[in-house]
This record gives sequence, C-alpha cells and structure tokens, in this order.
Amino acid sequence: MSTARFTELVENLPATVPFVGPDAHMRASGRAFRARLGANESGFGPSPKAIAAMQDEAAQAWMYGDSECHDLRMALAAHHQIAPENIHVGEGIDGILGNLVRLLVAPGDAVVTSDGAYPTFNYHVAGFGGALHKVPYRDDHEDPAALLVRAEQVGAKLLYFCNPDNPMGSWHSARIVQRLIDAVPEGTLLVLDEAYIDAAPEGTAPALDADDTRVIRMRTFSKLYGLAGMRIGYAIGAAPLIAMFDRIRNHFGVGRLAQAGALAALHDQAWLAHVKTNLDAARKMLGEIASDNGLHALPSATNFVTIDCGHDGAYARKLVQELMSRDVFVRMPFVAPHDRCIRVSAGPPTELAVFAEVLPQALRNI
Amino acid sequence: MSTARFTELVENLPATVPFVGPDAHMRASGRAFRARLGANESGFGPSPKAIAAMQDEAAQAWMYGDSECHDLRMALAAHHQIAPENIHVGEGIDGILGNLVRLLVAPGDAVVTSDGAYPTFNYHVAGFGGALHKVPYRDDHEDPAALLVRAEQVGAKLLYFCNPDNPMGSWHSARIVQRLIDAVPEGTLLVLDEAYIDAAPEGTAPALDADDTRVIRMRTFSKLYGLAGMRIGYAIGAAPLIAMFDRIRNHFGVGRLAQAGALAALHDQAWLAHVKTNLDAARKMLGEIASDNGLHALPSATNFVTIDCGHDGAYARKLVQELMSRDVFVRMPFVAPHDRCIRVSAGPPTELAVFAEVLPQALRNI
Repeated sequence: MSTARFTELVENLPATVPFVGPDAHMRASGRAFRARLGANESGFGPSPKAIAAMQDEAAQAWMYGDSECHDLRMALAAHHQIAPENIHVGEGIDGILGNLVRLLVAPGDAVVTSDGAYPTFNYHVAGFGGALHKVPYRDDHEDPAALLVRAEQVGAKLLYFCNPDNPMGSWHSARIVQRLIDAVPEGTLLVLDEAYIDAAPEGTAPALDADDTRVIRMRTFSKLYGLAGMRIGYAIGAAPLIAMFDRIRNHFGVGRLAQAGALAALHDQAWLAHVKTNLDAARKMLGEIASDNGLHALPSATNFVTIDCGHDGAYARKLVQELMSRDVFVRMPFVAPHDRCIRVSAGPPTELAVFAEVLPQALRNI
Repeated sequence: MSTARFTELVENLPATVPFVGPDAHMRASGRAFRARLGANESGFGPSPKAIAAMQDEAAQAWMYGDSECHDLRMALAAHHQIAPENIHVGEGIDGILGNLVRLLVAPGDAVVTSDGAYPTFNYHVAGFGGALHKVPYRDDHEDPAALLVRAEQVGAKLLYFCNPDNPMGSWHSARIVQRLIDAVPEGTLLVLDEAYIDAAPEGTAPALDADDTRVIRMRTFSKLYGLAGMRIGYAIGAAPLIAMFDRIRNHFGVGRLAQAGALAALHDQAWLAHVKTNLDAARKMLGEIASDNGLHALPSATNFVTIDCGHDGAYARKLVQELMSRDVFVRMPFVAPHDRCIRVSAGPPTELAVFAEVLPQALRNI
C-alpha cells in the first residue's frame, strides 16, 4: 500500500486555518445570520454596473478568463496613472500574498510583521517555512520605527505593514508611511497592504511611485468595491518584481466573471463614492451604538469599527459568543491587548439596527 | 535602494508560461477569432441553469464564497457516492495540481510524467524544484508499464497520468488504469487526471475507491460542464490526503459565483448528456473534415480531436500558423512525434464550419 510522502515542511505545518468562514458559522448554528458584520465584506453591495457586467458575462463562462487580465490591468493603469507593467492582478490579496511569500521566502528566511496583524499573511509565511518575527503594536497602531529596527536586526526579506490597519482600524498618515518606505533596510521588501485604503481619509496613502523597488502595494476589489466573492485583487510594484509572479502564478486563475465585474466596478467610481458616504454614516452609527452601551469605538479608517469593551480578552470573547448566539456575526482581534475589543463591519442601517438591538442583551448576559 | 531577494529556486525558474491564452492571441492579431477551437473549452456553453444560478448570485458577490465549499462538496459526494471528506474543491485542476505538488515535492524530489503530457503540471513541478522524469508515449498513448518502471527507478513521489489523454485524445480502459493503480510503487502517489472523463466511453474510468491511498483523481467543471471561466475543479482521494490541502490552500480562493454555477451544473445532468450528444456529432464532423482534406483524425475520448497531418512538426506548426492567421484558434502537441498533429476542440457546428472552410486554404498555403 502506497502512501503519499509529504515534504518535511508540510508535515510540520499545523492543521489550523486562519479564519472560520461566515457560512461555516451559519452551518454550525443551523440558522442564518440576522446581521453579517464579521468579515468586513461590503453590505452595501457591488456596483449595479458590476452586477450587470457579471450577469452579461455568465453565458460566456465556458471561456477561460484572460490569462493576462489585460483589460483590467490597462484600466487600473489609467486609473492610477502608472504603467500596466507595474500591476499584477491575482486571486485576491490572500492569493497574491501567498505567491509573494513563495517568491521570496525560503525555509528559515526572516519576515517581520506586527503581533496581531493579518493572520493569513502569517499563514503563508509559515506555509513556506519562513521565520516570523513579531513586533508589538503601540497604542493600537502598528509601530513603524519598531518594525524597521526588527527588520534590520533579523535581515527580513519581507516587512508587512497594513495601512489602514486590520484589526484595529487605525492608520498612519501618508507622511509616516513614506518615511517607512524611505527607511526600509537594504534587502527588505515592504508589503504595504492597502486593502482598506478606499475607506481612509485623504492623505493616508503615500503618492504612488510604482517603480520604487522597496515596496509592493496590495489593493483589492473585496472591500469597498463589494466583490469579495469574486476573488480579485492586485499588487502595484516595480516591473521586474511584478514580472516574477509570472514564473509561479496560476496563469488562468483569475476568473472571467471576476475580471468583468472588477472592470465595471472600477469604472463606476460614483458607486464607490456612494459606498463611502454610507460607510461614514455606518461608522458614526456604530460609534453611537457603542457609547449608548457604555463601550468605546476606536477611530476607524476602514470599513469596520473596532470597539473597546473596557475589559480583558475573556470578556470580549464572551461578548462575541453572546452576539453570535443571537445570529449577529462579528469577530475580534486575536492577541492582547487588542482582544479587549470586538470588530464590527460597517454595514447597512438594517444590519446595524439588529446589532443595536442585540448588543444590550448580549452585554447583560455576560 | 532596497531590492527584493528572491529564493534561489525562483531565481532559476524560466520566465516562460505554459500557455498563451486565447485572448492574448486575439490581442496580438487585433481581430476576434472566427472559431475558438484551441483551448478545449466547451463551445456548447454551460447549463442554462448554471448561467441562471450565477446571474442570481451576482448581487451577492459582496460575500466571500464558502471557504469549505460545503454545498458543492455534499452534492459531489452524493453524485459520486463517496464521502465529502474524500473531496477537495479548488481553483480548477491547475490550481489543485499546484497545491498537490507543493504538498509533496521538495527541491530535488523525483516526479514522473509522459514526454508531451500536460505542461502546466510540469510547470508546477519545476516551480517547486522537483526533478521531472519523462517517459515516451507508445503509439500515441501514455505507457503505463514504462511509467511504472520509471517511477520505481527514480523513487517518484508523484506519477502523473492523464486518462483520457491530452493532447492525443487517446485513452486506456478502466481495466488497464486499475492495473496501473494496483501497481503503483510504495511511496508514489498516482495523479490520475480525469479532466476529460465525461467525454470518454463507458468503461474508461475505474470504479471510484475514494479511500485508496495510492491515487488522487482530478475532475473539473472547465471542460464538458462549460465553466472554464469560473475556475473550479475538484480532487478525489483518501481523507487524510484531502485534509492536507487545508494546511496550504487559499481558504477563500473558490469564488461564490463559481460555487453556485458548479452546483447548478452538477444538478443538470440532462445538459451534460446534451453536451455529450453534441460532442459525438462534433468529433464525427471533425473526422470527416480531416479526411476530406487528406488528413487523419485520431480516435478521441475527449472534447477535442487530434489530427495527424502526415508530416513533421515543422509542417504542423506552419498549418497552425496558417489557421491562426485566418482567425481559427487551434493548438498542437509540443513534442515529436506528436507534433505531426494539430489539436482541434470539438465545438458547435458553426465553428466547425469555419474550420472546414479555412482548412483547405491553410493547407494550400503551406
């Protein structure tokens, strides 16, 4: 009897997954969510033009998607006023991060991130055998100075920095981020994850210098563009770095409807503005719901609000359980001291009303 | 100035891609194809029910797809009468092959395939540093006995076998394939790529024994189900092997519309039967077109027909160029002696009529 011989690296990987998905939670409870506010999806939906584009393309689904994502890359290049050679389109930021780690990280190579930052990035680093070094947040913000020191110390190949930040919703100004880029040590590539940049105030994103070899920037259609279910995002970086993805990527991996939907969504900037307006109102409402219940909403430059519950991680975990048991899907940061908080996506008013209704019950039950 | 430090493995990978996509070809010529018969897509289209399911789901694209592909896995389990634990759903067979190679192949590990078989598999093996050993075809068929000998000799971790075969369209009976499974050397996993199995005669697929640890079988919605543009396929294997994909896969990588479309397509077996009927007619028609032009169509158990042009590779390459320059998209096998052939997808009558019209002109021009 033959048995598959896994690599030593794979044999030693844990069987955990970074996130339990919303649908898996619903199956576990046997009930639908009343409010789906845990995965930072955009409850305001995608652009009606994106919906129509995907519906129009559905009958053409027998054809592979364009392996070069040409039309979308051209449109993104025009949108950002950069060259298409500076753009890699991939299967969401998750997929692109996996391939980026694969390009750079061999077993034992050092990678730096913040303790409590995006777990899927850590998952990919572990998956390729990288040695992950974590730096604490400082006052609920990622700490650029400390990250730089650690990257220098360990000779990091990658330095992960998410701005605005998930899960804290905090952000640094473009000036600070540019200083971080300028100070990246020789031999370290800065991964600037800007998944939430469309939700941030003006002056949060440093000017795009797409040929800067020190940084690769991640953008997505999964958040404000409302296309999480289509798996499409992109990276902006120096052309020689972007070209390297061709050596390892799944060339036909970005679907045909995904490309059509993303292209239409990009062209409908009026919808994006509409979503931003709704987002502002939703963040404000979440702040009010929090304070009405004696909790404190942290400032947010993302499409979610992180709410400080004023106690320890055990308390917040119990609150998440109480909310989930009432079919309100939220999540919370993983590590102390952030795990004093819960994280609530900025959804439409009807969903936030459910959260407002259920939160006092959940708090009373702790 | 910082520069990304790629892994040694990646630095040494070639910059080539396995396939130039159909859309890239059209951009190069500046004209649309008159007949799209080169990528073994299903020109008969997906089930109307699958189209409707994707259209219905489009407005829900703001939600991530189910990370566990639960409903589809349950439906596939019922369809094949196996357990859901034996099924891994991934981003097409291409994506699954990449992850399978990553699970098993460390730099230097031996892998065996046939010389001229699926280049995307070879691309993944090279991408993870595997040592690829190739065995010649025998009379336009993959050669199970020779593959087994080589796998034993080199201590292969993976043995790739495609049945029915791409690019030759040939096939072995279930009896032969079962003997191959039974004879796989200790420590070798057989990758049985059955992408085209729905196009094959009864008695081509060995009985499914999903718990057999010697083999992993690949199936797809990209071919007869007509959903190439959605990027969704699945693997059937022993539960402990299937579970290993969770350690490395992109957990939210299979899109929401892809899952909805595949589920509806699976439930519409009447459409699959309709496609098979059309396919039979198309293969027959391609055979007639070939013989009308003094060429010889090889027997096919796939959704394409491989046509022997009766000369060498240079001749067939010229024929492909002549056809492409007339906006008829076809491909051809890569290696001798198969490169005496061209490979034409079994499309709808209108497209085959274009091929019939253009082929004599193309032949005259060589």
